Amino acid sequence: MQQEAIEIEMKNGVTAPKGFKAVGIHCGVKKSKKDLALIYSEVPATAAAVFTLNKVQAAPVLVCKEYLLNSKNHRAIIVNSGNANACTGDQGYKDALMMAEKTADALNIKPEEIFVSSTGVIGETLPMDKILMGISAIADKLEEDDNLSAAEAIMTTDTFVKAAAESFAIKGKVVTIGGIAKGSGMIHPNMATMLAFVTTDAAIEKETFQIILKNVTDKTFNKIVVDGDTSTNDMVIALANGESGIENLKPGTVEYSLFSKKLYNVLKKLSIDIVKDGEGATKLVEINVTGALNDKDAEKAARAVALSPLVKTAIHGEDANWGRILAAVGYSGIDFDPAKFEIIINGIQILKQNYTVTLPIDEANQTLKHKEIKLLLKLNAGNGGATLWTCDFSEEYVKINGSYRT
Amino acid sequence: MQQEAIEIEMKNGVTAPKGFKAVGIHCGVKKSKKDLALIYSEVPATAAAVFTLNKVQAAPVLVCKEYLLNSKNHRAIIVNSGNANACTGDQGYKDALMMAEKTADALNIKPEEIFVSSTGVIGETLPMDKILMGISAIADKLEEDDNLSAAEAIMTTDTFVKAAAESFAIKGKVVTIGGIAKGSGMIHPNMATMLAFVTTDAAIEKETFQIILKNVTDKTFNKIVVDGDTSTNDMVIALANGESGIENLKPGTVEYSLFSKKLYNVLKKLSIDIVKDGEGATKLVEINVTGALNDKDAEKAARAVALSPLVKTAIHGEDANWGRILAAVGYSGIDFDPAKFEIIINGIQILKQNYTVTLPIDEANQTLKHKEIKLLLKLNAGNGGATLWTCDFSEEYVKINGSYRT
Repeated sequence: MQQEAIEIEMKNGVTAPKGFKAVGIHCGVKKSKKDLALIYSEVPATAAAVFTLNKVQAAPVLVCKEYLLNSKNHRAIIVNSGNANACTGDQGYKDALMMAEKTADALNIKPEEIFVSSTGVIGETLPMDKILMGISAIADKLEEDDNLSAAEAIMTTDTFVKAAAESFAIKGKVVTIGGIAKGSGMIHPNMATMLAFVTTDAAIEKETFQIILKNVTDKTFNKIVVDGDTSTNDMVIALANGESGIENLKPGTVEYSLFSKKLYNVLKKLSIDIVKDGEGATKLVEINVTGALNDKDAEKAARAVALSPLVKTAIHGEDANWGRILAAVGYSGIDFDPAKFEIIINGIQILKQNYTVTLPIDEANQTLKHKEIKLLLKLNAGNGGATLWTCDFSEEYVKINGSYRT
Repeated sequence: MQQEAIEIEMKNGVTAPKGFKAVGIHCGVKKSKKDLALIYSEVPATAAAVFTLNKVQAAPVLVCKEYLLNSKNHRAIIVNSGNANACTGDQGYKDALMMAEKTADALNIKPEEIFVSSTGVIGETLPMDKILMGISAIADKLEEDDNLSAAEAIMTTDTFVKAAAESFAIKGKVVTIGGIAKGSGMIHPNMATMLAFVTTDAAIEKETFQIILKNVTDKTFNKIVVDGDTSTNDMVIALANGESGIENLKPGTVEYSLFSKKLYNVLKKLSIDIVKDGEGATKLVEINVTGALNDKDAEKAARAVALSPLVKTAIHGEDANWGRILAAVGYSGIDFDPAKFEIIINGIQILKQNYTVTLPIDEANQTLKHKEIKLLLKLNAGNGGATLWTCDFSEEYVKINGSYRT
């Protein structure tokens, strides 16, 4: 799906908050497209991060985890695309360390104040000569302060740039949160994909920041499903530099809640952009499950529906095939009464309780003609609910992923 | 995938064992193809059965479960295709009971000696007038004793008949096991799919038979993966009528082991036929995982690989994309050291330990040119192993499932 109106975000993203700069360049990992990005805070920032749960973790993930533990403050994120530095063993680990060291040298800060990130082909070692020369060059270009080029440089086969920002006031001071992201699930041949980088000029202590980021990530990036493949490189890294001049955000305060809400908005926007850009995707699908015994059950049900190839292909074919949706909830492992199940698509009831079809099939199919589908699934068992975002499943997905290297 | 040489099985299937008859006819649920099958034992038989774990269970599944509990002996299986009698509420339940009652009348036995099975569209009530007339007609045709017509009558969008049989000697007496099956996972639009019916002239007590059937099903039908969608109607029903003249099989005996082994062969053949006939499938893939910490871990790893759309599309595209396979094992949730992972395809090593690629990519891709792929994944952690069968994922799957009703 192509994105039309993203001009506003282009201008800000990670550079919208005060005291952050970013730029992207071509260093030679890819043939001609931008492939190296640097995000920099002019003053020390606290950091929070969430990493892939895949047992196979790329070298930069390992290095980021160590630095997050070992350093109180952070200043920069260096990212290359075109090569994931995953499944590259000891050499890969050394290369990731060297990327941090070279960036630290160029910026005159400590290596452990850097985060390192890579995305692209798995199983090949990084072309370190090109990357090291690139790092020298990119540090000099930071003054250009160009969020768009940074957002472009983290893309692999993404078809559009993903950036977002929101500003709001806390006690008369303007606070801004910005972010850029790339990829969607692990949907690319040999690609390790979902990356997101978030900056804010709010002031937050490290422990608090980690709690907020984890919570909001659980409701956004952890609620999108493209194909169920989890990458070896997924990471969300967030920096807070306090340049807005507000006091440290404290849990339980109104300001804390407001910040959480705005962070949710920014990450939700990036999450939905990732789904929209899912390979071969032609439709964005929001799945809402209500009336489950608890939230966990609701999420299980929503996830089974979001992952079902039968449901995803039916939505692609604009076939309001309720039997597939009900069957997917049926094998999700949750407890519910199938006879109480209801389906509402874009506000129109398709199935009532007791398996009662409420519309002729042609009319029901009409509800799937839209580019954005809201699927409301009512279990009528309890008060549990969940929301996920996913996309449809097209021939194009198979074509792209079956013939990537031919 | 089309099947070439299945003539031998055509002649036997469920009618190969002594004392069993079967026939299939057209009764009008489908437009013109056969849609009603009857399998009959001339003498009382013990029965064993395994049913779908989907929380949404079709009416015939509910009726079969009751009859299995309430009757010591069984005589017949009545099956319609074209309509699954699933998500049909009270009416569907009454209809399933009526199918059993009508069949019992026609055969002059008790309703609870019958098993009822349905496969086809979900959410529509059965055309009972046609089915009841069909049951009268089919009982009269039993004398034709035609396994092929029965196997055809349980098909929906299957492209070939699935039947198998094996004979062997126990204490000088010939024992035979035969079976027919249809469908593959829940891969059909609105279809509730995997059915298998097994007959034998061995003598086995009910409790023992249930244990054997459950064990062998776990190693065969429960080890095939097409798309991960589990149907509302899946069932395996087995009848043992003792007509071979052998004594009751007792656990722990050589005869018991032999019977289990032969039952495994028959069900494995049917299972693999189901995978080969997976919608859009062009390749049969056997996944062997060895060296896991335990068998459960091995199965988790194999299942993650078998379900990964990225792996399935790569195999379809004949791309020996080892990063996708390793990443799928990585998110399967098991404990292993990615650096010790090895991949062998059709006997040729593609990846050695320490992420060492052993072949140029073009040569590695050659290993996937075959129609039948054996994927051996060595974890080198312990002694756990598992074997699964799956198929590739083609554009054709999306086309079939996205445009079924248009």
